[in-house]
Amino acid sequence: MGRVTERRKVLRIRDGAVSSRPDTLVAEEPLEIRLNGRPLAITMRTPGDDFALAAGFLVSEGVLAAASDLRNIVYCAGATADGSNTYNVVDVTTAPGVVIPDLTLERNVYTTSSCGLCGKASLDAVRTTARHPIADTPRLRVEPELLASLPDRLRAAQRVFDRTGGLHAAALFDEDGELLDVREDVGRHNAVDKLVGRALQSGNLPLSRTILLVSGRASFELAQKAVMAGIPMLAAVSAPSSLAVDLAAETGLTLVGFLRGSSMNVYAGEDRIALRAAAAPG
Amino acid sequence: MGRVTERRKVLRIRDGAVSSRPDTLVAEEPLEIRLNGRPLAITMRTPGDDFALAAGFLVSEGVLAAASDLRNIVYCAGATADGSNTYNVVDVTTAPGVVIPDLTLERNVYTTSSCGLCGKASLDAVRTTARHPIADTPRLRVEPELLASLPDRLRAAQRVFDRTGGLHAAALFDEDGELLDVREDVGRHNAVDKLVGRALQSGNLPLSRTILLVSGRASFELAQKAVMAGIPMLAAVSAPSSLAVDLAAETGLTLVGFLRGSSMNVYAGEDRIALRAAAAPG
Repeated sequence: MGRVTERRKVLRIRDGAVSSRPDTLVAEEPLEIRLNGRPLAITMRTPGDDFALAAGFLVSEGVLAAASDLRNIVYCAGATADGSNTYNVVDVTTAPGVVIPDLTLERNVYTTSSCGLCGKASLDAVRTTARHPIADTPRLRVEPELLASLPDRLRAAQRVFDRTGGLHAAALFDEDGELLDVREDVGRHNAVDKLVGRALQSGNLPLSRTILLVSGRASFELAQKAVMAGIPMLAAVSAPSSLAVDLAAETGLTLVGFLRGSSMNVYAGEDRIALRAAAAPG
Repeated sequence: MGRVTERRKVLRIRDGAVSSRPDTLVAEEPLEIRLNGRPLAITMRTPGDDFALAAGFLVSEGVLAAASDLRNIVYCAGATADGSNTYNVVDVTTAPGVVIPDLTLERNVYTTSSCGLCGKASLDAVRTTARHPIADTPRLRVEPELLASLPDRLRAAQRVFDRTGGLHAAALFDEDGELLDVREDVGRHNAVDKLVGRALQSGNLPLSRTILLVSGRASFELAQKAVMAGIPMLAAVSAPSSLAVDLAAETGLTLVGFLRGSSMNVYAGEDRIALRAAAAPG
């Protein structure tokens, strides 16, 4: 694709000194996702891995749960007036027999609950649509030291790619801390969708023996994506939201936040963290 | 509202030592925005300033441009099965005569262009719907030193409020660097919508003599929100995307990125930056 970064001229100001030079920016373009020919959603994303992004998005929305649910994904030619292909519209065709939920409004899963629109309804919607319950046997057990090593491993993998400072990263690790995959995107949710979509395409859903690491905060939406892909552990470098913690507690997801140096906070699912008996100061 | 933060129990791990304590988290709840009774969009937001958020969102979408376009905003009671009010659904009623664009899909402004879906179409959509062209007379002129001082002023204002580490901030400054307003939210776009919505409600649109500062990156969406509110200068602590720079160049918006210490990059609209003649090393 070659459109992951773009060059633009920039005026640099450093302590009053001014210089002009080319700068590398993260590319951002709209992607329209169609489901069986019908427009479903538009996301602003970094081009590349578009089929994986579309597939992962549909896992999060409860449409796809396995590679066999997917017939094919294509770029739509003819989406423009002159019939050319912008590579910004993809159409996902589901396999025969796949039941499509009523997705008339983006994220309308939140509104289908009888209790009206509230955090509880959002939790209910995920719980009732999750196709891969988090119930790992044998239970995943991870040492804090292993978790603490993951951000450095992510950064080492990122360094090859990110020259822009504008990308969010998401990475999948196995229970021994081996990096399985890393995706970067201008949108954090897109990076996770790309990871999950690639796993679906490879027949690797549910991701029941993996740890998902995200470079920023853990919102409800990211916790939802982990749950829908059957990922038992979500670790974030920064803070989680209240609703992300509530969703983790309700679904059995282990949620780790503020993973920095040898420190971390465990907000839910602490039984997957292998704690040694240790005196706690304070 | 009192729901800006919530308390949850957390397990802290510090160098192998484990302790349990309550932690303060940023609250996240869904908000459904209705326009004249019709559901339009759902956003995950930090509760509070919900009417401003809805109004600002509709400024960004090209529906509202002045306080006189707005008849009223209410919370919808009866949105739940038992008729109670979750304070998560707001209905915006426009004044007679306000023309509502065809908003059948969230962000469908990107799809109405005849050129199909591409970055160019996104730029065109903003250009054709912008109600407050950026053409400031006399032209705003800001010293780099003043810009460099803004992140500290934002952090000073934030310190009062953010105990969670999970909030994005957006602030409006006047051309002398005085803080006019600051909003925080679990979603960066919501923080900007809240700022713009409050300005609309106060009769202060267009914000033609102001500088918008955001705590993170500058995406297309944030640049769009600045343009739609008539803000001539957007400064971000981190990187912009390619499409944000393109939009700034096309609309005349001044876009500053990587605003850190006495350094910054100017990506577009450099004629609003008061540069002194200075030798540039390299």
